[in-house]
Amino acid sequence: MTESVATNARHRVVIIGSGFGGLFATKQLKGTDLDITMIAKSSHHLFQPLLYQVATGILSQGEIAPTTREILHRQKNATVLLGHVTSIDIAAKTVTSDVLGIEKVTPYDTLIVAAGAGQSYFGNDHFAEHAPGMKSIDDALELRGRIFGAFEFAELEAAMGHNVESLLTFVVVGAGPTGVEMAGQIAELARTTLASDFRHIQAKKARVILVDGAPQVLPPFGPKLGRKAHKALEKRGVEIILSAMVTDLDSGGVDLKFQDGRTQHIESATKIWAAGVQASELSRTLSEQTGAELDRAGRIAVLPDLTLPGHPEIFVVGDMINLIDPHNGHPLPGVAQVAIQGGKYAAKTILARQQGRDGLDKPFKYFDKGSMATISRFNAVLKVGKFEMSGFLAWVGWLAVHLAYLTGFRNRVTATLHWITSFVLGHDRAERTVTMQQVLARNALQREREESRAVDSEVS
Amino acid sequence: MTESVATNARHRVVIIGSGFGGLFATKQLKGTDLDITMIAKSSHHLFQPLLYQVATGILSQGEIAPTTREILHRQKNATVLLGHVTSIDIAAKTVTSDVLGIEKVTPYDTLIVAAGAGQSYFGNDHFAEHAPGMKSIDDALELRGRIFGAFEFAELEAAMGHNVESLLTFVVVGAGPTGVEMAGQIAELARTTLASDFRHIQAKKARVILVDGAPQVLPPFGPKLGRKAHKALEKRGVEIILSAMVTDLDSGGVDLKFQDGRTQHIESATKIWAAGVQASELSRTLSEQTGAELDRAGRIAVLPDLTLPGHPEIFVVGDMINLIDPHNGHPLPGVAQVAIQGGKYAAKTILARQQGRDGLDKPFKYFDKGSMATISRFNAVLKVGKFEMSGFLAWVGWLAVHLAYLTGFRNRVTATLHWITSFVLGHDRAERTVTMQQVLARNALQREREESRAVDSEVS
Repeated sequence: MTESVATNARHRVVIIGSGFGGLFATKQLKGTDLDITMIAKSSHHLFQPLLYQVATGILSQGEIAPTTREILHRQKNATVLLGHVTSIDIAAKTVTSDVLGIEKVTPYDTLIVAAGAGQSYFGNDHFAEHAPGMKSIDDALELRGRIFGAFEFAELEAAMGHNVESLLTFVVVGAGPTGVEMAGQIAELARTTLASDFRHIQAKKARVILVDGAPQVLPPFGPKLGRKAHKALEKRGVEIILSAMVTDLDSGGVDLKFQDGRTQHIESATKIWAAGVQASELSRTLSEQTGAELDRAGRIAVLPDLTLPGHPEIFVVGDMINLIDPHNGHPLPGVAQVAIQGGKYAAKTILARQQGRDGLDKPFKYFDKGSMATISRFNAVLKVGKFEMSGFLAWVGWLAVHLAYLTGFRNRVTATLHWITSFVLGHDRAERTVTMQQVLARNALQREREESRAVDSEVS
Repeated sequence: MTESVATNARHRVVIIGSGFGGLFATKQLKGTDLDITMIAKSSHHLFQPLLYQVATGILSQGEIAPTTREILHRQKNATVLLGHVTSIDIAAKTVTSDVLGIEKVTPYDTLIVAAGAGQSYFGNDHFAEHAPGMKSIDDALELRGRIFGAFEFAELEAAMGHNVESLLTFVVVGAGPTGVEMAGQIAELARTTLASDFRHIQAKKARVILVDGAPQVLPPFGPKLGRKAHKALEKRGVEIILSAMVTDLDSGGVDLKFQDGRTQHIESATKIWAAGVQASELSRTLSEQTGAELDRAGRIAVLPDLTLPGHPEIFVVGDMINLIDPHNGHPLPGVAQVAIQGGKYAAKTILARQQGRDGLDKPFKYFDKGSMATISRFNAVLKVGKFEMSGFLAWVGWLAVHLAYLTGFRNRVTATLHWITSFVLGHDRAERTVTMQQVLARNALQREREESRAVDSEVS
């Protein structure tokens, strides 16, 4: 039934995912007579680089995650549908999505798969409950509840004369840009924003510990910028533990094992996981049907034009792909620009084919606009190819790029002003409000564990 | 143990609740040598009058609910503790609070009970699951997920050719200020904000139905303003059903019974309860121990100085009290000003006693600053005693009062600018973002019910 395409029907492009890849592919096809359907499992487009600011109460969720249909509301040839894609049938050319048992089969002529990557716990999925990742708005709000909840409970326990060391210890696993920014921001919360809010605890005595298995922070930025970031973080009050793997993690804390065999246990109520990524499960089904290989992180090998072998009608873009960059022999990194440029390339290829050509003349070429990470207010590191920079100017660059985003999709003047006063100037941190449901739900869990431990130690 | 007050110990004031009554009592005692402990079950102070704007995506939760300890961070004699007060022991002069099994007993010399009121379903507590109230940030975000989720699911179901009438029908129960503002705002969402966001549904065809048991909308505002509000709401696209009681309510819809005996069933996926209030359960324990009477809504009868009979050390203020206003013979209404003025009165009485007096010279006297409700953008109703007003000027008054709040606690310039552009000018409605967890959790429930019904109707 889905195969019977009516004569003169518009060419149907189905795009899976509302992240950078899916969104920029869709926008590139604006004003054409293509019939575009975007299927995504959340109703918003998320600007992940600022997610840590939602978790730490600087920005509200709406400021970094506009609804996708709002961004595309003027693009009449694009339909946005909520759904988690559960299977792709390459022979039948259909995508099946499901949300709460509402199953929808959507036929396509061309498919762009841009489903991104999720958090990876390297096979220890039971860590997730105790150390949420940093991949979605739900994650960020969950973490906001945990972080501010920890201070609330510490104040209460301290008022009762109890030990609050574990409640005031925050462990961030993973010293990539997200982990570094998260750890720095929690330290700043404790030392400035919350400094005078409590009577029984000294918020500024909270410990923030950043852990990584690599021998430096920000590994992709190289040793020199890594050292600068390391110093800046320590100055902010972050303790850094390197060359250490997390061997266990539960409600009470974290177990570490160093490369030299030593082990260490850290008591900590609040753990944050910013360590690894795993490509969307859809790469597996694509691999099974096309023979394209998967790497360890579940990324699928694509041809130089981002299609799958034997299936020029299927593009894969963004965090899901494994493609060697001919310029440096390394695989393309999982960053926004790879997704954006890939989405645009796929869209332009589709348009070229509409004009009767086989595709674009050149294979996909990633233009490295550089990567950056803030390491404290007014201080960032920046790397473009072999060029490295750190300090205030790098931070201004970081700010400019992120400001451009915040104002980008629409005229969001007030959101930008809010961000400038709250983040840049450090005033008016309005978004600390947590839903009590979130605070209580997770802490109930933790409490249970702590009580069972207390009983154990009384018994022994 | 708690009775043994050390000599020269500071006088301990315990305040239950972080609403208007508790907060203004606390602030009134700033700079004194009293030792104040505020115990509240949420970590923020909530400006309830704008809660409906959080539910409809105009404001973020942080903009109307700053954390209580942030508001009080400079007031060194005030400690804020998270906890749900479970009992008050008047003989022992202690308050017991609990949060997640952390039980704390706090002794007091003077107690101010300002625990407010919750939603009342008039004995039908099972309605709550299907029709959340409008009393907390959790409620508002839950409703935001339901409202925007309904449109998302309607688009998806319509794309599959299904009937979406129920998904696009919103029923608001209760035509007081909250219900009126909520219904009007949903209608505006559908007709303007979301009008061009969908491809398979016409958002502007959504039905918004406002139901009340009274024969007019906004009963406390009298028939004249009620008629004006009625007309303005109908112009905005709200259907109004009066003199009708809700006899049943489930995931599928609402059953109504009119005063003349007629009945009506409305199929509706999204129901909002803004109908009744019930004083905090603490009024019961106070009544049992002092003999003070409770009225039907659980409000406790207080003496003219807001204390309980025989217990000058216990004040009750705000929504929990039943006290006749000698000016008009009516009980004091459950509005912010009664709580604010009551909290201040209690605090001043405590200070007078510290100076060796018995209390203030005069009983508590409520000064009616008036009540107002917006009925559409640029149009409000306003009533101060017998003086009535409606239209643009009344709206300017409404705006001024609410602006004063938003900027009140701290210098929240950007939050105010955001509110002006989003609400007043109708631009930049950034806060539509919902957590997918909330959207999916509740719709799963609804879906289940609908499926079981579908099976029923297939069988029959």
